[in-house]
Amino acid sequence: MPKQVDHRERRESIARALWRIVDQQGWARATMREVAREAGVSLGQLQHYFVSRAEMLTFAMEHAAEQTSDRVEQHLDSLDQPPHPREVLRVVLTELLPLQPDARATSRMNAAYVLEAMHDPTLQRQIGIGLRDGRAMIESLIRQAMEHGQIPPDRDPKIETDLILALTGFATLLELNVVEPQEALAAIDQHLDRLFRAES
Amino acid sequence: MPKQVDHRERRESIARALWRIVDQQGWARATMREVAREAGVSLGQLQHYFVSRAEMLTFAMEHAAEQTSDRVEQHLDSLDQPPHPREVLRVVLTELLPLQPDARATSRMNAAYVLEAMHDPTLQRQIGIGLRDGRAMIESLIRQAMEHGQIPPDRDPKIETDLILALTGFATLLELNVVEPQEALAAIDQHLDRLFRAES
Repeated sequence: MPKQVDHRERRESIARALWRIVDQQGWARATMREVAREAGVSLGQLQHYFVSRAEMLTFAMEHAAEQTSDRVEQHLDSLDQPPHPREVLRVVLTELLPLQPDARATSRMNAAYVLEAMHDPTLQRQIGIGLRDGRAMIESLIRQAMEHGQIPPDRDPKIETDLILALTGFATLLELNVVEPQEALAAIDQHLDRLFRAES
Repeated sequence: MPKQVDHRERRESIARALWRIVDQQGWARATMREVAREAGVSLGQLQHYFVSRAEMLTFAMEHAAEQTSDRVEQHLDSLDQPPHPREVLRVVLTELLPLQPDARATSRMNAAYVLEAMHDPTLQRQIGIGLRDGRAMIESLIRQAMEHGQIPPDRDPKIETDLILALTGFATLLELNVVEPQEALAAIDQHLDRLFRAES
C-alpha cells in the first residue's frame, strides 16, 4: 500500500476510534491515551499521526463532515433526479440530526467540538468555515428555489436560511429524548411545507 | 445569619464560580479543585457543600434555570400587562439565547451539561424534567393563543411548540459567531410573525 494512503487510512481509523469513545463514553473520556487504546496503537504511534489533541479533533471533525456529506449525497442519489429543493433541504437536515447510529456519532462529536471551540480560537475558526459554507450552500439553494417560483417571492432568503440552520437545534432535544424522532421529522416537514407554500 | 440561608448562599456562590470557569475557560477546566480555587474555598469545604461533581453540576444548572426564569419574569414585567403571547415567546427565546453576558454564561453551562448528560442517566433525567416542563409551558401558551384566535386554528400546537424549542439551536450559531445577534432576532421575529399571522 502506498505510504500516503496508509497514513490517511490510519488517521481515519484513529478518528473513528475517537468518535466511538465520544459516542459511547462521552467527551470527558476522549484523552489521547484512551483514543490510542481504542484505536489499538501506542500513545507514541498516535502522536506520530497527530502532533496535538487539537489536530486530532480537527481531523476527526473534518472526517465526520465528509461522512455526513457522503450520506447526504447517497441519500440524494436515491431520489428522483433532479431532486426537488424541498427534498434536498429535508435530506440535509435529517442527516445532520442524530436519527440513526452513524449520524448520532457525528452529531455527538459535533456537540463536543462546539463546546471545545468556544474557548479555542483555532477550532472556532475551523468550525466557523464549515458552518459558513453550509449556510452559503443553503442560501443559494433557497435563492434558486425562489427564482424557480418554488418559494414565495416575499420570503427573505437570509432569514429563511437561518431558520433552516436553527432547526439543527433538534439535535439536543433528540439526544435527551425530550423530542421523539417522528416528532422532529413532523416539525421539519411542517416548516418546509410552509416555506414552499406557493407551489401546489 | 441562619445556618440554612448561609448553606444555600454558599452553594450559590460556588455554582457561580463554576459558571465563571465554564464561561471564561471552558468545560474542560471545571474540575472540583479549580472550582474550589475560583470560589475561594478549600477542596474539603467544597466537598462539604457538594458530595459529588454530579451534585455540584445539577445544583449549578438548577440555579442557572432559576436565574433564567427570573430574567424572563423581570423582562415580562417591563411589558404592557398582560403581555401578548407573541411577546412572551419572544422574551423566553431571547433570554435563553446567549445575547448578553448573563445569558451567555448560563447558555454555555447548559451546553456543557447537555454533553455530560448524554452519558449520565441521572443528569439526563434531571435536564429532561426541566425541558419537558418548558415544552409543556410553551404548548399551553400556544393552545391558549389558539383559543383566543391569536394563532390560526389550523396550526398543530405540538408541532408549533417543537418548532419554537428548536429555535434554541441559534445558541450554537451565536456562540460560534456564524450568526449575528440581530440576524437571530430577525429570524425569531419572522417565525413568530408567521405563527401569529391570523391577527392584524
